[in-house]
Amino acid sequence: MTGDLLIRSVRPWPNALDEPVVDVLCRDGLVAESGPGLAAPEGVPVVDGRGGVLLPAFVDSHAHLDSTRLGLPFRSHSAGTGLAELIDNDRRNWRSAEKSVAERATHTLGRTIAAGATHVRSHAQVDVDSGLEKLEGVLAARQAHADRAHVQVVAFPQVGILREKGTAELLDAALRAGADLVGGLDPAGYDRDPVRHLDVVFGLAEKHQVGVDVHLHDEGSLGAFTIELICERVAALGMQGQVTVSHAFALSSVDSERQRELVDLLAEHDVAVTTVSPGAREPLPIRQLRWAGVRLGLGQDGIRDYWSPYGSGDMLERAWQLAHRNGFRQDALVEMCVDIATRGGAAVLGTTLGLTEGAPADLVVVPGDTVTAAVMDRAPRTLVVHAGRVVAVEGELV
Amino acid sequence: MTGDLLIRSVRPWPNALDEPVVDVLCRDGLVAESGPGLAAPEGVPVVDGRGGVLLPAFVDSHAHLDSTRLGLPFRSHSAGTGLAELIDNDRRNWRSAEKSVAERATHTLGRTIAAGATHVRSHAQVDVDSGLEKLEGVLAARQAHADRAHVQVVAFPQVGILREKGTAELLDAALRAGADLVGGLDPAGYDRDPVRHLDVVFGLAEKHQVGVDVHLHDEGSLGAFTIELICERVAALGMQGQVTVSHAFALSSVDSERQRELVDLLAEHDVAVTTVSPGAREPLPIRQLRWAGVRLGLGQDGIRDYWSPYGSGDMLERAWQLAHRNGFRQDALVEMCVDIATRGGAAVLGTTLGLTEGAPADLVVVPGDTVTAAVMDRAPRTLVVHAGRVVAVEGELV
Repeated sequence: MTGDLLIRSVRPWPNALDEPVVDVLCRDGLVAESGPGLAAPEGVPVVDGRGGVLLPAFVDSHAHLDSTRLGLPFRSHSAGTGLAELIDNDRRNWRSAEKSVAERATHTLGRTIAAGATHVRSHAQVDVDSGLEKLEGVLAARQAHADRAHVQVVAFPQVGILREKGTAELLDAALRAGADLVGGLDPAGYDRDPVRHLDVVFGLAEKHQVGVDVHLHDEGSLGAFTIELICERVAALGMQGQVTVSHAFALSSVDSERQRELVDLLAEHDVAVTTVSPGAREPLPIRQLRWAGVRLGLGQDGIRDYWSPYGSGDMLERAWQLAHRNGFRQDALVEMCVDIATRGGAAVLGTTLGLTEGAPADLVVVPGDTVTAAVMDRAPRTLVVHAGRVVAVEGELV
Repeated sequence: MTGDLLIRSVRPWPNALDEPVVDVLCRDGLVAESGPGLAAPEGVPVVDGRGGVLLPAFVDSHAHLDSTRLGLPFRSHSAGTGLAELIDNDRRNWRSAEKSVAERATHTLGRTIAAGATHVRSHAQVDVDSGLEKLEGVLAARQAHADRAHVQVVAFPQVGILREKGTAELLDAALRAGADLVGGLDPAGYDRDPVRHLDVVFGLAEKHQVGVDVHLHDEGSLGAFTIELICERVAALGMQGQVTVSHAFALSSVDSERQRELVDLLAEHDVAVTTVSPGAREPLPIRQLRWAGVRLGLGQDGIRDYWSPYGSGDMLERAWQLAHRNGFRQDALVEMCVDIATRGGAAVLGTTLGLTEGAPADLVVVPGDTVTAAVMDRAPRTLVVHAGRVVAVEGELV
């Protein structure tokens, strides 16, 4: 469902405080025209941007909506360290939540949209413990917000594929049930057999003609080897542009020559990368990735769940984190982080966002003197627009 | 000026969501009593904590109030990288601010107090370009908020002491004019003569009987050597408990054996450390420092100035940064960060904060299920209390 809309008084990125504000007209869900003092065509709703900065809407390219506890009473983090312990901890606890997966995912997706993200790629855990229950919860959240955001769902083998019999069949069922992509998880370091793991993942991708998004925490040469295995399969199946490596810690844990090789390999095979900008990990070489033309998106990861107490639904805050963690002070670098959180993520999801004529009218208005000032202040969003329709005002859904 | 106050309905740290709320009575600026349903003594003002978490007030143990532009129109970061370039950039620009140092420092100190910090140690740049003008601005801000917060001011040679003739004399004048401590800056790496630099600093400290707070960005063995030089002077002058090393990047850029030696050396000489938890630097070994008994405080550093666009005045946000940057997920570790931002900083400033009977009634009430939840949410502070008097409500000064 697309709409018409006239947004008055915004300063489209790039902008400066002393530049005059303009109006932006959206028609049939697309940006149609912008300029000072546009006349409102008859019947077109008019909203006030109050002089805020106009950005393309945010894209959360890596979320876990199925595990979120945002808005529920806080629970102390009860896991030890390490992936296996985190996985087990979630299994012990997730069924005891006060609300269903669907209710929790719907709430957090709503908070994410209210903070300006209208495109989200969420992983949904598929395993023999939860079956398709988590997937169905995320699909229900997507349906609940169908008019407010575009959501891609990844059938994600959070517990590996090979460790528990029946997981591959469940992934297959998940793809029949509405998942848009098939996921993977540390094919070597966690699932212990990178070739067989990736063969299952890419086999399902080929069977269902869907994209792939692999969680890759493995560092150093093991993670680098896995990136090579992924790229070999992309080449063999002609899946350029349809595969994402999430986290990709290998890129920041090899020497700079190997890093360059891997970045070039990803670019050559048009394999995208997403980061959640974790606090304690070495940052990805984001400038190198962008210079090489690798599509790079930002995501929230888990949001207040059994994995981590962090996360708020706010992708502008996550862009701040990315800038802060990298020590970026110059406006151009801070704005690069916003670009990763908007257009970069859109490219990962296979779509295009922007502010020019013909771009989807997926927009966010943020108070702030400039884009960088808006990142520093992180004020509630004045307006969030999806497909030419206002979906949130002043940080609250409409 | 101290006061009496009854704070109703708070959950003093440690606490849990399901624990009953209590009331806290403050008398003559001290915590006097706490318990459920306390009667209000006649004439004692009563305020409502609305069931929030009660913490000792925050302590910003490392601020630069003289350079802040918070609340003014945003200016793009115009400096290159490196300390020298940042120093020059500030010199080129600081006089062009729309408001005076005093007005800017007063505004940002107000925002800091409204966010819950009632103790602040601010550096004030003293150099041949600005003379005592920046110091006087910070002293004016201290005076403006004298009833709301306790502020220590460091006469800080931001441009070094030896590079420009007359700086040592200006530091001397600053200490006569009301500065509480004497500062230093990278005695080796920046000022190029660690012994002579530190001799000036400790000479002034001895002459004026004040404490010392040295900025030390120098990494590795050079920074480690400087820490040794500082500790030698502490021992020679009997200045245990009166000296702080700020930043102390050396601690996280030497091997673990050397790190242990340095931590022990700091503990032995009761030299405090402050960190601002920078995003792109290796975190300090904060657990090792605390285990060894080194007083460790957290600070905001520059707040939206020519040095950096980051900073908001909010020490709870800074505590979040410290936890996030360290990858802390467990409540005990997140709470340790809050402890550094409250009691830890108080110890650096030579005072004691707490919640028990007889502690100064410098308190903050934050909405949140638990302390960790409050860190994650960072909601506006319900109440800020200094010396038994309410100084801010709902994030605004009263």
